[in-house]
Amino acid sequence: MQFELTKQFLDELNLAVESKNETAVLALIEPLRPVDIAEIINEQDLEEAIAFYVFLSEEQAADVLIELDEDVRERFLKSLSSEQIAKQFIDNMDSDDAADLLAELPVEKKNEVISHIEDIEQASDIIDLLNYPEDTAGGLMAKELVKINIDWDIKTSINELRRQTQEVENVYTVYVVDDRDMLQGIISLKRLLLTPDKNKVRDIYNDKVISVKVDLKDEEVGQVMEKYDLVVVPVIDEIGRLVGRITIDDIVDVIKEEAEKDYQLASGISENVEYSDNLWLQTRARLPWLLVGLMGGIVSSNVISTYEGAIQIHPEMAFFIPLIAAMGGNVGVQSSALVVQGLANKSLGLDGIWSKVFKEMLIGLTNGLVCSGLLLLYNMFFPDQINWAITSTVSIALLSVIIFAGIFGTLIPILLHKYKVDPALATGPFITTTNDIFGIFLYFYIGHLLYAVF
Amino acid sequence: MQFELTKQFLDELNLAVESKNETAVLALIEPLRPVDIAEIINEQDLEEAIAFYVFLSEEQAADVLIELDEDVRERFLKSLSSEQIAKQFIDNMDSDDAADLLAELPVEKKNEVISHIEDIEQASDIIDLLNYPEDTAGGLMAKELVKINIDWDIKTSINELRRQTQEVENVYTVYVVDDRDMLQGIISLKRLLLTPDKNKVRDIYNDKVISVKVDLKDEEVGQVMEKYDLVVVPVIDEIGRLVGRITIDDIVDVIKEEAEKDYQLASGISENVEYSDNLWLQTRARLPWLLVGLMGGIVSSNVISTYEGAIQIHPEMAFFIPLIAAMGGNVGVQSSALVVQGLANKSLGLDGIWSKVFKEMLIGLTNGLVCSGLLLLYNMFFPDQINWAITSTVSIALLSVIIFAGIFGTLIPILLHKYKVDPALATGPFITTTNDIFGIFLYFYIGHLLYAVF
Repeated sequence: MQFELTKQFLDELNLAVESKNETAVLALIEPLRPVDIAEIINEQDLEEAIAFYVFLSEEQAADVLIELDEDVRERFLKSLSSEQIAKQFIDNMDSDDAADLLAELPVEKKNEVISHIEDIEQASDIIDLLNYPEDTAGGLMAKELVKINIDWDIKTSINELRRQTQEVENVYTVYVVDDRDMLQGIISLKRLLLTPDKNKVRDIYNDKVISVKVDLKDEEVGQVMEKYDLVVVPVIDEIGRLVGRITIDDIVDVIKEEAEKDYQLASGISENVEYSDNLWLQTRARLPWLLVGLMGGIVSSNVISTYEGAIQIHPEMAFFIPLIAAMGGNVGVQSSALVVQGLANKSLGLDGIWSKVFKEMLIGLTNGLVCSGLLLLYNMFFPDQINWAITSTVSIALLSVIIFAGIFGTLIPILLHKYKVDPALATGPFITTTNDIFGIFLYFYIGHLLYAVF
Repeated sequence: MQFELTKQFLDELNLAVESKNETAVLALIEPLRPVDIAEIINEQDLEEAIAFYVFLSEEQAADVLIELDEDVRERFLKSLSSEQIAKQFIDNMDSDDAADLLAELPVEKKNEVISHIEDIEQASDIIDLLNYPEDTAGGLMAKELVKINIDWDIKTSINELRRQTQEVENVYTVYVVDDRDMLQGIISLKRLLLTPDKNKVRDIYNDKVISVKVDLKDEEVGQVMEKYDLVVVPVIDEIGRLVGRITIDDIVDVIKEEAEKDYQLASGISENVEYSDNLWLQTRARLPWLLVGLMGGIVSSNVISTYEGAIQIHPEMAFFIPLIAAMGGNVGVQSSALVVQGLANKSLGLDGIWSKVFKEMLIGLTNGLVCSGLLLLYNMFFPDQINWAITSTVSIALLSVIIFAGIFGTLIPILLHKYKVDPALATGPFITTTNDIFGIFLYFYIGHLLYAVF
């Protein structure tokens, strides 16, 4: 039922396209959906893509275009004139997709394309949408929607619906507005179908409607739709007029991108890149945190160098440097990840910051006692060159580092969030690096004290 | 418009509930949605919750119950008899929610509750659903749907719809089936509304319908709905009969959980926990990877201990242990995260495994040359006690470790995926630990060689 692109399929298609065998090409793509065809074009080179594209119907071509990878689409559109873009694509698109597409073009070409749009209403819808920032409700919404007046009766409403729905592809909800276009509520198609003709909309509509303001950030739109299980949400302007609607399929991408961004930040990737991005983009996204790690390593080397003399006398102190550093990093990443997810899901609860730190301390104490206890047993029974000083040093240092790293990993993202910095920045390399340095400092300091005792 | 729970609101509500002030309680919750009320109950203790619950209408209570946190719901249901659960909740729920709820109960209580369900059809729907594993399309779907026969005319269809829609809350799509209940296609409500009464369904329905098999894994259902931008997807059995439908709101949770699970695994958390989970659950989820890290640290200590003599003579070798270990870990986490996301999004492209490794090698070479070059400059100009041997050792080791860690971080998740193991397991502590050990080994080995030269 679903399509899985293979190298074999691609070769077959390219061959059919090259030999201009229309029957073969159409047979191959007949069962495919626009997104499947976009997958194919993403894998073709530009020449193959241009040769293949002419086999698509106009409506198909427009649907495929919006599903393409951004860089592929950019190259493709460069090969077309402004008039072709307007006539072949924009005319066949919903206003939100058309606006997204135009926003990607250079300013000059964008204006040229707009001047070629024939449907004046669509052109003005698109210009409206282009005014909203991309990452807000306004930037996500489509203008196409179905609305009726609160004072109409059912018969008038259904007739009006018949007219309006010719232009709207999917009708999920019918919006109810007053004479000034202020959103009053919603009514389901089903309800309209089931109610006798003479009734008034006013008596049967649902006034408990969740809406979002046009300037709400896209992540927050996602949170609202997710929390209230909405499939579509109406968008209102500053004074409450209905201006558009956002469907869940656009929001699923936002929700997913948000989760992936946190994951990437935690993995030390500073820009939103994909595996398939080129060398330069990947390097640019990966190098910054590596440089942070490098600086951290240099600081650590300075901390250790102050104990140079001690290392010459007690070289076994060096053995456990990686263990202490790694454990501090691991614990810090764990607790910061949980806090970041809790902040994103608003599931941290109503407790104050100190009760959170206290809880983290208890978790650290439990994990720390288990780990340092096991390490103690290992050091007591296994290695030859190990003495009491180093044995107790590593176990005490490990316990302290685990507790400290947990507290640090909890506090930092909460503080960043409080000061409106993305807390996900704190996970990954930043926490790891800081805990490395502090852990090593603590380890050598405890060693310094205990070697004097034993 | 949206509700934000505050401590003040909670206190006010608890006070009103305690003093049995119905007017005040109802005024407070009047603007709220079920999920908002569930948020309140999640924060109340059991006694407060039980006292508050009686103020809700039956339908409200059922909607709230399915939105509660699992542990809160469990405690709450324990306080009710099987008959209460059946009459007050199950009767007011959709089949999928009812089945999810029952699946959480102990077997004996579950059977008791089922025996108290009055609507025989609902009881049999629920029993059907309980037979499907929770993480498959069958476990996610609801039985409530609207379907018409392909041989009917529009008038018959609309009459039949009027009858069926009384039981179905949201109608997104009307399914078209044949006499044997085999799924043939879909038709939109809008299309039905716009078509004259005498036409046949057969002539106007859309036969390009995407459906999922009842045993498809929930993540894959999510991938299908996401890829094809579906709001609802029909579920068919082995021979193609329509058995249910899944709406996107249930799938958003699956998509999000999947992304969060990868993130948690990358952060060294082995079970799906939330920040608000108790000490025991959190420790259980966090300890396993810490023990892996501990073991890795012990192995590292053994590697270093073989160079004990060298460290006594050249203690500066110890200075850069954390740097080498940290950088190997960071690079490995970066590249494995990108591969894991690429696998999840199916965006790795059609290239073979060796071209991926080659690309990663180039990225490693670029990042490695920058980092080791900077380290070389630092060591040449800044520290006092540094000689040529150690300067060249750390830079060469760092370059090698970065290239190796990148390749390792790319290969491991691809191989795990190939052998059907969740590749996300490879990110985080596993990669970090392995790269730590190998990096340190490489560092000391290179040092051993270079000190002989200089």
